[in-house]
Amino acid sequence: MADLLIQSQLKSLLLATATEAENGGLVLAGVLLSLVIIYFSSKLGGEICARINLPPVLGELVGGVVIGISALSLLVFPESGASASNSLIITILEKTAGLTPEAASGVFATQSEIISVLAELGVIILLFEIGLESDLQELIKVGPQAAIVAVVGVVAPFAAGTAGLVYLFHTPLIPAIFAGAALTATSIGITAKVLAEIGQISSPEGQIIIGAAVLDDILGIIVLAVVASLAKTGEIQVTNIIYLIISAGTFLIGSILIGRFLAPYFVHLVNKMKTRGQVLIIGLIFAFILSYIATAIHLEAILGAFAAGLILAETEKRKELEKQVIPVADILVPVFFVCVGARTDLSVLNPAIPSNREGLIIAAFLIVVAIIGKMVTGLAVFGQPDLNKLAIGVGMIPRGEVGLVFAGVGAASGALNQSTEAAIIMMVITTTFVAPPFLRLVFQEPKKKIIVDS
Amino acid sequence: MADLLIQSQLKSLLLATATEAENGGLVLAGVLLSLVIIYFSSKLGGEICARINLPPVLGELVGGVVIGISALSLLVFPESGASASNSLIITILEKTAGLTPEAASGVFATQSEIISVLAELGVIILLFEIGLESDLQELIKVGPQAAIVAVVGVVAPFAAGTAGLVYLFHTPLIPAIFAGAALTATSIGITAKVLAEIGQISSPEGQIIIGAAVLDDILGIIVLAVVASLAKTGEIQVTNIIYLIISAGTFLIGSILIGRFLAPYFVHLVNKMKTRGQVLIIGLIFAFILSYIATAIHLEAILGAFAAGLILAETEKRKELEKQVIPVADILVPVFFVCVGARTDLSVLNPAIPSNREGLIIAAFLIVVAIIGKMVTGLAVFGQPDLNKLAIGVGMIPRGEVGLVFAGVGAASGALNQSTEAAIIMMVITTTFVAPPFLRLVFQEPKKKIIVDS
Repeated sequence: MADLLIQSQLKSLLLATATEAENGGLVLAGVLLSLVIIYFSSKLGGEICARINLPPVLGELVGGVVIGISALSLLVFPESGASASNSLIITILEKTAGLTPEAASGVFATQSEIISVLAELGVIILLFEIGLESDLQELIKVGPQAAIVAVVGVVAPFAAGTAGLVYLFHTPLIPAIFAGAALTATSIGITAKVLAEIGQISSPEGQIIIGAAVLDDILGIIVLAVVASLAKTGEIQVTNIIYLIISAGTFLIGSILIGRFLAPYFVHLVNKMKTRGQVLIIGLIFAFILSYIATAIHLEAILGAFAAGLILAETEKRKELEKQVIPVADILVPVFFVCVGARTDLSVLNPAIPSNREGLIIAAFLIVVAIIGKMVTGLAVFGQPDLNKLAIGVGMIPRGEVGLVFAGVGAASGALNQSTEAAIIMMVITTTFVAPPFLRLVFQEPKKKIIVDS
Repeated sequence: MADLLIQSQLKSLLLATATEAENGGLVLAGVLLSLVIIYFSSKLGGEICARINLPPVLGELVGGVVIGISALSLLVFPESGASASNSLIITILEKTAGLTPEAASGVFATQSEIISVLAELGVIILLFEIGLESDLQELIKVGPQAAIVAVVGVVAPFAAGTAGLVYLFHTPLIPAIFAGAALTATSIGITAKVLAEIGQISSPEGQIIIGAAVLDDILGIIVLAVVASLAKTGEIQVTNIIYLIISAGTFLIGSILIGRFLAPYFVHLVNKMKTRGQVLIIGLIFAFILSYIATAIHLEAILGAFAAGLILAETEKRKELEKQVIPVADILVPVFFVCVGARTDLSVLNPAIPSNREGLIIAAFLIVVAIIGKMVTGLAVFGQPDLNKLAIGVGMIPRGEVGLVFAGVGAASGALNQSTEAAIIMMVITTTFVAPPFLRLVFQEPKKKIIVDS
């Protein structure tokens, strides 16, 4: 009897272990399938856009929309309320790889998390690459202009958006402030990718945009902290804001100073090493440490990666490192852009749904403010008459995922009603998708110089 | 009152969302920190080994042991029974990044899963690279020899191990069969990495070893299915075994035939594309599709990746693809080897623990059988007197992670007692760590040719 009991216990233990190993294999299968679909859609979209003279990154975003929640539902994420049964990849795994319905939700959650982290690693590598292509001296030179562009790009759309909503649409103050705050963000990823595609990162305009976008990222974190604490407690926690400002400043300046001090040792170390991939791995260790520190002090990981790239760009290993980072970026960065597209829910744009209509009107207003509010930033640049000021303004337009964070936090806090939330999402979609071709156009005109990256 | 209720609900919703976003950030932070530690230990170990003329991959394995469950506990996995409180990385996250103890176990589980999948992607990329460096014609030419090496390498250690345990140690038949089965595996990853390091992949010996190791992988899956069904039901499911043999054969031959047919279209497609990274991404799409199919039909993903590499190696894009895969391999492959080391629990080797002593004696026997049983395979190679037969035999020695799977399944099924399980683990550790320097030695002697990869 006892023997039988033990035997049955052992059997269930064996089954549990077998199931676990099986699920481990199925998570890997799900990740492989997701990557195949992500790569396929990003390349298809990118190639189509390259052929009609649009930025490839726009194609990656649209490719993501096509496979995402808005259309094919191949790539969906639990955060957007999707469950395993909504995911076509999970259905494929059930049909072809023997995934059981009981195990489906676990596999779905784990593989979504893995794709999300790969996307985050993608944007970290992108900013590391952008940092490598940037020039610290040039950034310091354009620093004052970049700071003005960043500050004007936060104040102008915030003031115009909030005031417009309160006076024109009679929106209550707190949701109006939230919507205004969502207008302040700049998606550095999208602009930087387009600049890289047209070979304009190291131009003065490119460096002003990159510098301003980095500062905007910090300002965005501060603005988010302000409005989130406003929504949560009804008041602004000054200490928290001061902490954020000091930690961001200390981090950026400190990491660059310490990094410059350590850079010669990096070159020395790499020269001494005998095993394969030493430049890339030591570079990534540096980038990941700074990314980790940035995350740990509640900044964004990409700030650390950008700082690391900036520091290593000053060493003699820059060219070698850049060359080795390219294939890594090629396999990780598309995951980021496709995921941004896949998370975009276009159903908020459908005017057939009555509740969307009010949102559409507010959205139209927000879009106008979002575009004009950032384009004026170019005019704020002083002292350099030769600069393409239009290009600088346009470079600040895309809101990308940063804007969606505002909409998400606002909705979760209850501060935003559905139509205002939908309006913010529409504004984010429009600015994100309009900016890349627009940016390419304004850079193309004055210089008559097109560099198609290949 | 209702208002207050709604307000409190909203507040908890906001908190939940904030916590979720926070945990997402902490998972990323955990992954970044794990990668930093993995890269650091792999490079430190690799560099030390390169300096004392040992294969760098041995250094990566030892580096993994140092940061793993046996020593520093920086990188531990839930499957080995570790919980969040055992993980030093989780402790660091709690101390520096504000991880709360309540969230720790979730973050630990997710980040462990992510690192595991990165490791699996690492071995997939490694086998893809090995496939690219291999020569299909040469593999077909050495096919008969490779098949003999594989079959002898399965039969000899299995028969000697099982018979020895039954007659010398009076082990019951089922555990003896399990231990014998664990002796049959060959870790293609470790041997292939060493061959790549010393520039011997495309030599006739290298191709025989690779071919035999690939066949061994298939034979290993079949043997595992046999012994697992023996332990579970007490009988052998013949249909299951026939299914595995047919599906493995169909998959390998079918994918190579279809792949060769599709290869010209691959070249044509890549030549037509205008965006960055087209060779690499299209190559990886191909590799991941075959890996997915292999997983779906219960083979191993690495078989698909190897087949994909083999097919693409025949195209004119081989050189370009190889060059672009290298940096990707450089960042993913060390994750695999460090994880193999980190999962290795050296405490089974401690003779101070009485229960280990019986295991140590059995282990000594298993190690002798494991080494001799594979070394005789070289003698089975016929018709080519110039071949370095010793090198072929030594190349088949490392059991690696495949052997641990046998120990794990055996222990979970209750077929193995503790000392036999510990003996198998010791055998796996010894063969895995002894093979790389041994392999380097036997390849070095006759040819007087050392190529240190750099």
